[in-house]
Amino acid sequence: MSQQVVIIGAVALGPKAACRLKRLEPDSRVIMIDENEIISYGGCGIPYYVSGDISDAQELQSTTFHMVRDVSFFREAKDVEVRTRTRALSIDRMARQVHVHDLEKDEKYHLDYDKLVLSTGSSPRKLPLPGVDLPGVYTVSGLEEAIRLKGQISQSGVEKAVVVGAGLIGLEMAEALADLWGIETSVVEIAPQVLPGFISPDIARMVRNVLEENDISVYTGEQVKEIFGEDRVKGVRTDQRELEADMVILAAGVIPNSDLAREAGLEVSPQGAVVVDRHMRTSDEHIFAGGDCVQLQNLVTGKPGYYPMGSMANRQGRVIGTNLAGGNDEFPGAVGSFVVKLFDHAVSGTGLSIETASRQGFDAVSAFVTQFDKSHFYPEKDLLYLELVVERGTGRILGLQGLSTGGDSLKGRIDCVAALLPGKPTTKDLSNLEVSYSPPFGSAMDALNSLGNVAENILQGFNKGLRPAEFAELWEKRQDKDVVFLDCRDEDNARPFMDKYPEKWKNVKAETLDLNLDKVPQAETVVLLCNNGARSYEARLKLARHGITNTLNVHGGMSMIKKWGVDI
Amino acid sequence: MSQQVVIIGAVALGPKAACRLKRLEPDSRVIMIDENEIISYGGCGIPYYVSGDISDAQELQSTTFHMVRDVSFFREAKDVEVRTRTRALSIDRMARQVHVHDLEKDEKYHLDYDKLVLSTGSSPRKLPLPGVDLPGVYTVSGLEEAIRLKGQISQSGVEKAVVVGAGLIGLEMAEALADLWGIETSVVEIAPQVLPGFISPDIARMVRNVLEENDISVYTGEQVKEIFGEDRVKGVRTDQRELEADMVILAAGVIPNSDLAREAGLEVSPQGAVVVDRHMRTSDEHIFAGGDCVQLQNLVTGKPGYYPMGSMANRQGRVIGTNLAGGNDEFPGAVGSFVVKLFDHAVSGTGLSIETASRQGFDAVSAFVTQFDKSHFYPEKDLLYLELVVERGTGRILGLQGLSTGGDSLKGRIDCVAALLPGKPTTKDLSNLEVSYSPPFGSAMDALNSLGNVAENILQGFNKGLRPAEFAELWEKRQDKDVVFLDCRDEDNARPFMDKYPEKWKNVKAETLDLNLDKVPQAETVVLLCNNGARSYEARLKLARHGITNTLNVHGGMSMIKKWGVDI
Repeated sequence: MSQQVVIIGAVALGPKAACRLKRLEPDSRVIMIDENEIISYGGCGIPYYVSGDISDAQELQSTTFHMVRDVSFFREAKDVEVRTRTRALSIDRMARQVHVHDLEKDEKYHLDYDKLVLSTGSSPRKLPLPGVDLPGVYTVSGLEEAIRLKGQISQSGVEKAVVVGAGLIGLEMAEALADLWGIETSVVEIAPQVLPGFISPDIARMVRNVLEENDISVYTGEQVKEIFGEDRVKGVRTDQRELEADMVILAAGVIPNSDLAREAGLEVSPQGAVVVDRHMRTSDEHIFAGGDCVQLQNLVTGKPGYYPMGSMANRQGRVIGTNLAGGNDEFPGAVGSFVVKLFDHAVSGTGLSIETASRQGFDAVSAFVTQFDKSHFYPEKDLLYLELVVERGTGRILGLQGLSTGGDSLKGRIDCVAALLPGKPTTKDLSNLEVSYSPPFGSAMDALNSLGNVAENILQGFNKGLRPAEFAELWEKRQDKDVVFLDCRDEDNARPFMDKYPEKWKNVKAETLDLNLDKVPQAETVVLLCNNGARSYEARLKLARHGITNTLNVHGGMSMIKKWGVDI
Repeated sequence: MSQQVVIIGAVALGPKAACRLKRLEPDSRVIMIDENEIISYGGCGIPYYVSGDISDAQELQSTTFHMVRDVSFFREAKDVEVRTRTRALSIDRMARQVHVHDLEKDEKYHLDYDKLVLSTGSSPRKLPLPGVDLPGVYTVSGLEEAIRLKGQISQSGVEKAVVVGAGLIGLEMAEALADLWGIETSVVEIAPQVLPGFISPDIARMVRNVLEENDISVYTGEQVKEIFGEDRVKGVRTDQRELEADMVILAAGVIPNSDLAREAGLEVSPQGAVVVDRHMRTSDEHIFAGGDCVQLQNLVTGKPGYYPMGSMANRQGRVIGTNLAGGNDEFPGAVGSFVVKLFDHAVSGTGLSIETASRQGFDAVSAFVTQFDKSHFYPEKDLLYLELVVERGTGRILGLQGLSTGGDSLKGRIDCVAALLPGKPTTKDLSNLEVSYSPPFGSAMDALNSLGNVAENILQGFNKGLRPAEFAELWEKRQDKDVVFLDCRDEDNARPFMDKYPEKWKNVKAETLDLNLDKVPQAETVVLLCNNGARSYEARLKLARHGITNTLNVHGGMSMIKKWGVDI
């Protein structure tokens, strides 16, 4: 079969679909248009280009064998015709034509298609602020803008920067500016936490600490009101303060580019994303769409979601390429996985956070675990700080998020759960999950197994406890409450706290509790602590056996609350 | 409910089951017996204790909070009574009694039980060789023997060692001796490859290279005939050579300790493992068994298998503990995951290797992929060398194995597939698998996605090629065959080979093939090469379009065959 396929957008999904189609159906003609000059690049690499980890922007455009994926590459190597600086104006679905505008020659013409692919991507959410157009204000809309941004840093120098938005890209950009360029960087986020929607407030607090330890100022729950300056940007005014800045980066999320689709009468969601079926086909059978411009089914909630990620686009691109060639491939949806490097830490997650789960109507609860990524007796290891989200009643796993200095280890655990999520796993599946094991790579009971076990104990009512933020609140108000903190560790560990807080901090180690019931403090609430929450869990069970049930276990233990930053 | 539970064996599963039971049902009495003095230790850590990575054997016996898990720990902290140096002699199932022998006092008596747990573990396979009892000959049967072994090294000094058996433990022990002690170490393996049953001969060859690069001599396909010496071991005689040695370690696999069970009339498999159901119950409803002494269902083949791993034992221990307390937990079986550190490399796998798959009756084929664990444009990264095993016809994934210097990254990928395997995934599931992504942690198309894609292309006949060993054979016989090697990379890469092999090595880069068909060599077989097999795959499709179909692609490309060690 020979057909003419037009692809609108040539960054991630477009090129993938084009190349896959040409491999399967070499006689078809493929014309790919893009309004920009630079095409087919790894947009997710932009923060690393800005930071200098990647020295040359062309590396983001290059194949593994260092060939730049430009117009002539696609022509010669792939037999795909690319027309850059060419904007799609409208789609005539009856005539199967795309009307386009050659921005270079300022000419308008049309392209016929048998099949059309919309890979129009997304645009940075525009903030309706005074000053957004001042020189020195950037979004992270694409590689061309990133090159200008880096040019300003390397040529003019930047002393102070403000990043508006603490999502994935905002934080990656903040690190890029602060870490390698030494720019005094602030992040302003309107939500009450960093990475809103991705992680719980507890994990977010730990991430915030990582940022602050690396000299980034973080202002959450704060709204930017104005970007000020005359010839150039001079700063940002929020509802709470004024921040000087030579550079402002707007990273307030992205919105799907769906105007073309909407104007052509294709189905578009209320949130503005193109609606596609599992074959990545739009409401017009001749038109496919994928990547940042479409909505996908969330495989945890069953509801539509929006997943603007380069990796998602690439995988969908192959499915579309196959289907353009008459195949019948499916892209079932997304679970919502992410990983981000922030200085020496990684933050990663999949599925729903506890807050997202509640918002979606699940009766959900969290299990916190801190555990080494290797055997505890193995010398080199990193702590994993993990929060598992499970549904009450069913024990169904809804999501997992966490952070660690062992980034690859963390990602491995998250990806395991991501792989399981579409199959609606329960805590039992995690308890028994057979991850590979030897001491240099894990524990006999892996952190994932522990999470399954802890979650089950919580659901069955054995392990009742405090999230880090709940502990922090109780700790802060300890003088006003009838609460005592019982350290279940060895005296060596407990002594400094007993000396500092003689009224409130007591110590009986978990193993000798049965013999020392008289030393258990009498209080309305006894908060049990150990290093990671396991020893104090045993203490809770022992006390319950003796009728002492007014106890709460600190989930994740001292490790977790220290990471959270309780002032203790 | 209050009952008396007797547990035979106190290393991994026994203590886990005991503690879980006591948490759920504190009033029950638990008596755990073991014929050894040292109990409850991380046996998988023995090689790292021997190497010196772990300085003190007690660390393997300690909790995360550095408390030694000895008899008094179990008594005081867990209310579990442990009787060490106590051997179980027989089980009287009618009377529900275990007859035991106190080896210390040389007294025999019996213990009544309501429920009995067999966690009798495994023993090193005994080799019927002359000299196995000479001083200086060890197995790796437990921590006590490991302490003696390390004592010999540190006190008397060892210059030369021979390890018999190239399984997981054999190779870990070989590294322990060679790496940190600098002992001249040889490994002798009767099978034609290292890690037989775990990985294909191709991957095994790469592992062998890692060992040899680290000064370990590897003799495969070689049978040990005798261990010789007078007062002490002096060496090992194989069917092909004599190897001097001050120390010999026998690591020829393990066999389940099932005599007690068999003599009590419990169902035991022809291979000698105790048969249990999904609740870990034996053929006697009052007797549970788990860990190294039982067989489990292989969740890929559906057939019984044997998985003597500490991690498996721990997870089963919790299930047994729950069920002892009246629960109804299941342990569905195993997929067979492993990971082993060998010097700077990790070797890991899950499911079936290509050979095991064929032996089990699957019509299986391999897909090889070499890909960076991070984005190719990100500065720090390691290559993953992976082999995916898939079933023809169905596209079902049967297993994944590989090696890498990025151990945590490799393990993460293997564990993802391990998590999927029970659900009988296909190549499509892997192509679309949503692993978390950002450039410091992966590629937009992760190596797992690439494996799914490559496997699909192979199954559909688009990608026809050579395994590393097949390439090596063809390369060695190249002068006698009508075969030409077409390098599809840039001329820079190809030039050295063209100069060295002017008759056989040609170059047309994949991207310009259509325009240079006249330069494509005329030969019965054209072997296509590039760095990783992707560019040469494109070349194969292009040539096919022009009627040139006598082509073979080198799977995994130059990276893979170099790692294999083709002399090129």
